[in-house]
Amino acid sequence: MQLARVIGDIVATRKEPAYEGIPLLVIQPIAPDGSDLGRPLVALDAVGAGVGETVFFVRGKEASFPFHPKQVPADAGIVGIVDHWTTEAGGGPRARPGGQGRSPHAT
Amino acid sequence: MQLARVIGDIVATRKEPAYEGIPLLVIQPIAPDGSDLGRPLVALDAVGAGVGETVFFVRGKEASFPFHPKQVPADAGIVGIVDHWTTEAGGGPRARPGGQGRSPHAT
Amino acid sequence: MQLARVIGDIVATRKEPAYEGIPLLVIQPIAPDGSDLGRPLVALDAVGAGVGETVFFVRGKEASFPFHPKQVPADAGIVGIVDHWTTEAGGGPRARPGGQGRSPHAT
Amino acid sequence: MQLARVIGDIVATRKEPAYEGIPLLVIQPIAPDGSDLGRPLVALDAVGAGVGETVFFVRGKEASFPFHPKQVPADAGIVGIVDHWTTEAGGGPRARPGGQGRSPHAT
Amino acid sequence: MQLARVIGDIVATRKEPAYEGIPLLVIQPIAPDGSDLGRPLVALDAVGAGVGETVFFVRGKEASFPFHPKQVPADAGIVGIVDHWTTEAGGGPRARPGGQGRSPHAT
Repeated sequence: MQLARVIGDIVATRKEPAYEGIPLLVIQPIAPDGSDLGRPLVALDAVGAGVGETVFFVRGKEASFPFHPKQVPADAGIVGIVDHWTTEAGGGPRARPGGQGRSPHAT
Repeated sequence: MQLARVIGDIVATRKEPAYEGIPLLVIQPIAPDGSDLGRPLVALDAVGAGVGETVFFVRGKEASFPFHPKQVPADAGIVGIVDHWTTEAGGGPRARPGGQGRSPHAT
Repeated sequence: MQLARVIGDIVATRKEPAYEGIPLLVIQPIAPDGSDLGRPLVALDAVGAGVGETVFFVRGKEASFPFHPKQVPADAGIVGIVDHWTTEAGGGPRARPGGQGRSPHAT
Repeated sequence: MQLARVIGDIVATRKEPAYEGIPLLVIQPIAPDGSDLGRPLVALDAVGAGVGETVFFVRGKEASFPFHPKQVPADAGIVGIVDHWTTEAGGGPRARPGGQGRSPHAT
Repeated sequence: MQLARVIGDIVATRKEPAYEGIPLLVIQPIAPDGSDLGRPLVALDAVGAGVGETVFFVRGKEASFPFHPKQVPADAGIVGIVDHWTTEAGGGPRARPGGQGRSPHAT
């Protein structure tokens, strides 16, 4: 999987029927230090991510697992929203030492 | 998935029988700003795309899903025609703010 | 799939039994303008291609589909011989405007 | 598979349910001489690796095999901790000539 | 598939149980002219290759086919030892014009 920043979304009316109702986001893969890493791509969103959030995504057929038993012809999908991460060189740009992350259901 | 521009098509008479009747297009992957990104490739077309249109395509075995139950040995397939997209840096070259996209069945 | 030029072949006597009797060709991926694109690789040949011919090949497990039900552990296979192609920038090096391609069974 | 060095970990509370309870580590692929090779990525950990250890990991859907029958949408997973390796150019940075490796259960 | 030169091996005592008893070799992909091509990787060995030999290997899940029905989470496997090859630009470094290759069972 790779870290990425959500940078946009896509509207497509003519598409494979299996895509109906699934958000398509444009994401920019990033390095652990938060810098851009490689080319932007289009990914299915299975976790309700929004523009500006840091996520991790999976490549390959596995991207469609969260939509099972629907057979979505996909090769990239967002599977988690990152609260924070730590590396040898320190935390990422959204690192919050000691933080417990945000709850998706927090009000 | 990745954004791409359709730039050509291919004629092949000697080929795997499973390919019979499926359009083969040459596509150029592009970045969200519309610039070329990486190498052109050959993709199955499942949505009736034409030269010059902006599409998004899937890599891997999933490219053949739209032709199920036919088993097409493919690794890239066009799965949607892009109406418009938006990113942090603004819309893509075909972005139409507020637009509803083109209907595939519009007359 | 990608366009490629067949540039050689391989002889291997010690190999996985599933490979028995399947031609192994060395191919050089090419761009639509006919220039080399990336690294040469070894591919199964399912269509009787020869050195010097322009082909298109598939990556991944799908490369073994033409040999079904034989389970060949392969990741690249030639699935068609290209007669000609056209792109925005004109035809490929073997383009024959108005041509119908060569029949594999022509005499 | 590729050699890598574990360089960090990730905390994500909003994620695909299948990820629950599986450690997510940030790894840096390395060359046989121990130098960094390509971009860091996020991998499932199936062997109890820790930051600073040298591991080898697998790419693709296979990354989720160790968690079978759980269907984890993953594309990278750590499958072994390297004791030492040898190459034409000598051993890797953790090579211990004549060593038997560390037992995971040694006390 | 790709040509490669076997350059080393790996010892790992803590690993996925499915790896037990399968040799893990470090290989350097090479071009048809014998020069290094891309990064070294770790591959399963299904054909008894040794350091210094020229082989061809497969990427992806197919790497584990020779060990069926064992489910090995692998993405690269050596599937043949190359006797010689020929290309437009002449044979590879081990090419033996007119040779019949080495028999694995020769005495």
